[in-house]
Amino acid sequence: MLRIGVIGTGMIGQDHIRRMTSVLAGVEVTAVTDVDVETAKRVADALPGAVVHGSGEDLIADPGVDAVVVCSWGPTHEQYVLACIAAGKQVFCEKPLATTEEACRRIVEAEVGHGRRLVQVGYMRRYDAAYRALKAVVDSGRIGAPLMMHCAHRNPGVPSYYEKESAITDTAVHEIDMVRWMFGEEIVAVRVLVPRKSRNGGDLQDPLLFLLELAGGAIVDVEISVNIRYGYDIRGEVVGEDGTAALGEPSPVMVRGGGRLAMPVPADWRERFIRAYDVELQEWIDSIAAGGPPVGPSAWDGYAAAVVSDAGVAALRGGDRVGVTLMPRPALYEVAP
Amino acid sequence: MLRIGVIGTGMIGQDHIRRMTSVLAGVEVTAVTDVDVETAKRVADALPGAVVHGSGEDLIADPGVDAVVVCSWGPTHEQYVLACIAAGKQVFCEKPLATTEEACRRIVEAEVGHGRRLVQVGYMRRYDAAYRALKAVVDSGRIGAPLMMHCAHRNPGVPSYYEKESAITDTAVHEIDMVRWMFGEEIVAVRVLVPRKSRNGGDLQDPLLFLLELAGGAIVDVEISVNIRYGYDIRGEVVGEDGTAALGEPSPVMVRGGGRLAMPVPADWRERFIRAYDVELQEWIDSIAAGGPPVGPSAWDGYAAAVVSDAGVAALRGGDRVGVTLMPRPALYEVAP
Amino acid sequence: MLRIGVIGTGMIGQDHIRRMTSVLAGVEVTAVTDVDVETAKRVADALPGAVVHGSGEDLIADPGVDAVVVCSWGPTHEQYVLACIAAGKQVFCEKPLATTEEACRRIVEAEVGHGRRLVQVGYMRRYDAAYRALKAVVDSGRIGAPLMMHCAHRNPGVPSYYEKESAITDTAVHEIDMVRWMFGEEIVAVRVLVPRKSRNGGDLQDPLLFLLELAGGAIVDVEISVNIRYGYDIRGEVVGEDGTAALGEPSPVMVRGGGRLAMPVPADWRERFIRAYDVELQEWIDSIAAGGPPVGPSAWDGYAAAVVSDAGVAALRGGDRVGVTLMPRPALYEVAP
Amino acid sequence: MLRIGVIGTGMIGQDHIRRMTSVLAGVEVTAVTDVDVETAKRVADALPGAVVHGSGEDLIADPGVDAVVVCSWGPTHEQYVLACIAAGKQVFCEKPLATTEEACRRIVEAEVGHGRRLVQVGYMRRYDAAYRALKAVVDSGRIGAPLMMHCAHRNPGVPSYYEKESAITDTAVHEIDMVRWMFGEEIVAVRVLVPRKSRNGGDLQDPLLFLLELAGGAIVDVEISVNIRYGYDIRGEVVGEDGTAALGEPSPVMVRGGGRLAMPVPADWRERFIRAYDVELQEWIDSIAAGGPPVGPSAWDGYAAAVVSDAGVAALRGGDRVGVTLMPRPALYEVAP
Repeated sequence: MLRIGVIGTGMIGQDHIRRMTSVLAGVEVTAVTDVDVETAKRVADALPGAVVHGSGEDLIADPGVDAVVVCSWGPTHEQYVLACIAAGKQVFCEKPLATTEEACRRIVEAEVGHGRRLVQVGYMRRYDAAYRALKAVVDSGRIGAPLMMHCAHRNPGVPSYYEKESAITDTAVHEIDMVRWMFGEEIVAVRVLVPRKSRNGGDLQDPLLFLLELAGGAIVDVEISVNIRYGYDIRGEVVGEDGTAALGEPSPVMVRGGGRLAMPVPADWRERFIRAYDVELQEWIDSIAAGGPPVGPSAWDGYAAAVVSDAGVAALRGGDRVGVTLMPRPALYEVAP
Repeated sequence: MLRIGVIGTGMIGQDHIRRMTSVLAGVEVTAVTDVDVETAKRVADALPGAVVHGSGEDLIADPGVDAVVVCSWGPTHEQYVLACIAAGKQVFCEKPLATTEEACRRIVEAEVGHGRRLVQVGYMRRYDAAYRALKAVVDSGRIGAPLMMHCAHRNPGVPSYYEKESAITDTAVHEIDMVRWMFGEEIVAVRVLVPRKSRNGGDLQDPLLFLLELAGGAIVDVEISVNIRYGYDIRGEVVGEDGTAALGEPSPVMVRGGGRLAMPVPADWRERFIRAYDVELQEWIDSIAAGGPPVGPSAWDGYAAAVVSDAGVAALRGGDRVGVTLMPRPALYEVAP
Repeated sequence: MLRIGVIGTGMIGQDHIRRMTSVLAGVEVTAVTDVDVETAKRVADALPGAVVHGSGEDLIADPGVDAVVVCSWGPTHEQYVLACIAAGKQVFCEKPLATTEEACRRIVEAEVGHGRRLVQVGYMRRYDAAYRALKAVVDSGRIGAPLMMHCAHRNPGVPSYYEKESAITDTAVHEIDMVRWMFGEEIVAVRVLVPRKSRNGGDLQDPLLFLLELAGGAIVDVEISVNIRYGYDIRGEVVGEDGTAALGEPSPVMVRGGGRLAMPVPADWRERFIRAYDVELQEWIDSIAAGGPPVGPSAWDGYAAAVVSDAGVAALRGGDRVGVTLMPRPALYEVAP
Repeated sequence: MLRIGVIGTGMIGQDHIRRMTSVLAGVEVTAVTDVDVETAKRVADALPGAVVHGSGEDLIADPGVDAVVVCSWGPTHEQYVLACIAAGKQVFCEKPLATTEEACRRIVEAEVGHGRRLVQVGYMRRYDAAYRALKAVVDSGRIGAPLMMHCAHRNPGVPSYYEKESAITDTAVHEIDMVRWMFGEEIVAVRVLVPRKSRNGGDLQDPLLFLLELAGGAIVDVEISVNIRYGYDIRGEVVGEDGTAALGEPSPVMVRGGGRLAMPVPADWRERFIRAYDVELQEWIDSIAAGGPPVGPSAWDGYAAAVVSDAGVAALRGGDRVGVTLMPRPALYEVAP
């Protein structure tokens, strides 16, 4: 049993605790902490034997904690991840790795200084069965070299705290990581085109067309529509030299009625990606329990996503093509994204 | 942690042990036994703290075993299930519940005598996401009352020990249980029509058209093709008064290449139903751990499947319509299938 | 310009006249007649130069008529087709060829006596692009020898004059002809299974499961649902030894809205098969204009459909398997159906 | 019978002659001409009663010609269309209307001077059943206001005379017209993004991402891949405020074999759009025969396509956003595109 301490027992933290308690194998939650200590205590009450710590640092230091899951507020991620590295403990950090490029860079440098990988970042699309099947086709060479990719990221609606820049930093950031992983290349420039606004989007600039250039010259277009009402719909098609490969339409049922053949679309991201979250954490647990480094998104991936995301925000504000400049990739992350 | 003893450590038993050890939550395997004691020992070596018992009866009696999973050879199921009932322990029995109608009846009577449900039978289609979505549409009334169902059960090939009758007893038995559950009604008669034989089927009579009549008058046709080479393909469409609902084509990826838009078909039953097996066992574990009776397929369902299966074999041999007569359903199983 | 005389200017006759006047090439309607002479005159008023005849026999004798299209009431088909054969003129006769087996046999014998093919019967599914693509796959051998076929024939509703037997004689008769053509074999026996009735069907026995046995042993099941409300839906899947081939879902548009991905289903048979009617008549015109015999459904096909249809009605009334016995096939029709 | 003279009897001219002779109703070809008079004579030999003219001007002047179809080399279009306008005869001109913006403008001005519409340009996508169904959904308001459109235009390969600019002028020009018609708005700016090249494309810059801005702010992206080998594939999805609508995948047949469920993709543009060509010309014939003006793509549409196409070529050469400036739209073309 891998003994996990969870920092941050808000919505996402509670969801990961539920997952580690009721869904996954080989893991138990032995310690929790939260800036709101009452929430932490309430969560711990349902976890037999779990300890409540007064701070993330105390939790990290707890000898009854083998590895740490960070689900706290974004601006606190850096300090907890650095503390885990300092303690030599494996840490799964929900996205973003940190909220600034500099903070991400400090984490990368700390991990490089430590000498082996301790950090995994929570980009879960890499664990989705459809994306994995898509990548397997691309990697097989069956469609020739990949040259373009068309993506759509559609939300039925967004919460009230969603801001103009969130379209990049919260929404498109998933495509940023996915595209780097799918192509095995870094993103070198971005553009944002701004169509006329949906009446559903209030003050937001919604939808957007987000354009990515990759190091090898491939171009990716991403439609971002976050108030499209009809459902949560994630689509992607890689265009190769000889053919294309696209995410399936994985509907469990087809209904013929009222003049139509219809398939349900997922209502929200939970319905669409719940299994990816399960697989993501199970694979992390299994790799940690086996003593190996994590094989999922690394601190480098978190750093690169942050830099590209910043460029996307600049492109959204400024208009034209914005280049992306990354620090040299340390040998620790020599495997392509 | 629910402590499970596994009787039978052959292929299916080992798969369920892997599942309970590496995939599911809240469970540990604490005891195993097998007619081949060496196999049982080898399996136990990979399970820290697990005990090897010399007999199923010893395992059932073990106070370190909360509940039992029976994966042994079919003809032994009756004795172990009866022993579990006698011991008052919950038991998950792989299909078939028992190999004769009389044996199934004895189990039903023993459980009724015990007074509460202790037995679940391993019909896993009820746990498949597509079948569940299909049943949800049917139950919603959106397509009106269900009147017919069209099914296909296609295997790329079958093992050498597969016999003529296996088309009913091993293959169609899944549809027998699924249809009873989908319609919430018993099957009252069956027919088997025999088309000309596939060159791929050797001495088998393959394919078959299996026809089921339900108590309320609905008619179900099932194509059984067990050497169809192209893949493992399970299909079903319920025809209602106002529309139809069908299992989706849940392909994760769509590839355009070589003049075609193509989606992969599952290669075998593992690929198609592995998640259903996971969900089946997790839900059984959760219900047992919560102290409640199991909510999955009951001893009655196992009994009914056996009687219908016998009728199917008679129809295959004899030709025409064969009626199905069940004993009166005890109040313990008053909920529809 | 092929000069056509049309016997019967009711709904179907007017539709064929519209087709020959406004849609097809190389044809003009030069003569019409109808039991209701006023209707015939009104139709002729819109056809410059068209003659109105007092009887079908007069129209057939008209030297300004190269070939005849028969769209009159079914019981009159025999007399007009026989008159065309006697006159040595090509005739396209809407289905049915005649209303009794004996009448169909008399037509076959007359045509055989004449010595070359003059008769084509209006089974238009053979001209539908989807059925043709399906037959091309079957004939290619890509799915191995065909062993079974699953069909559904669904109407949203039927007119008030539709009777119990119409499910076979008006509806399933299309599948009867299509299946003979698809497999290139005669039908040797039929069965009808009767599920519980739809509340939408009034006194009709709706739906039905119609089962066909072919000479080579293949078995075909046809769901007939004529009050299913949601649309007009024609489906078919041929099951071969190594794979299957099915009619596509040829929807022109896919709409994502309201939680669903939906494709429209045709509202009625016109929408579904209007192109097949166009192609059917154009190919007939082209073959006649080229001086050759017609290549579409023959008098033999019309005769065979009548015999199988009679057997279907007997099976619907009586219950069990009804054999089909055809007269020996004359050499004139030696090509498979 | 509408009497048509055809200028240009090359590949496209011969195809339209075949169409008017063997497929469409209410039309005959009474005169032909070609720069290669021998070709014209050979074509005329198969057309009973057709006259061969020594020049397009003679053909236009022929009193036995009611209307003209121009299929000659692009640079000659202007002179023949102007001559038709001068003669007051309806003319169907294959795309492009003319090869320069100025020439198109002269045609527009001549037609405006004439006072009523005489010119239709051969953009046939507006006649495709799938595009029409797509536009009907957009116009219905079911998906809210249209904000974006995603298109792909894929060719398996291109002929040897295809040049770098052809990607815009020959290929994307179809999307240019289609998008104006779909949105009912003019295009105001274009961009071309250049991904890394396919190994299949030789010296061509293939593929491209062509981006269009519409007057109302909508943005359209068009993937242009002209050597993608797998087939001819035209795709389009309009993104609205509340949902999306896309061209269907209109495959006639679905084949299950070899581990896949596969649908054929059209091999070339003929297979995909042959019906659209038929409908296009039949509707033009019907509107001319009825004495009305043509309702299809106008001289204005041809002019606008030329200007946008020029901008696209400039964007391909130069790199960045290129604005589109049209002359004021004359009242003759007041209806939106």
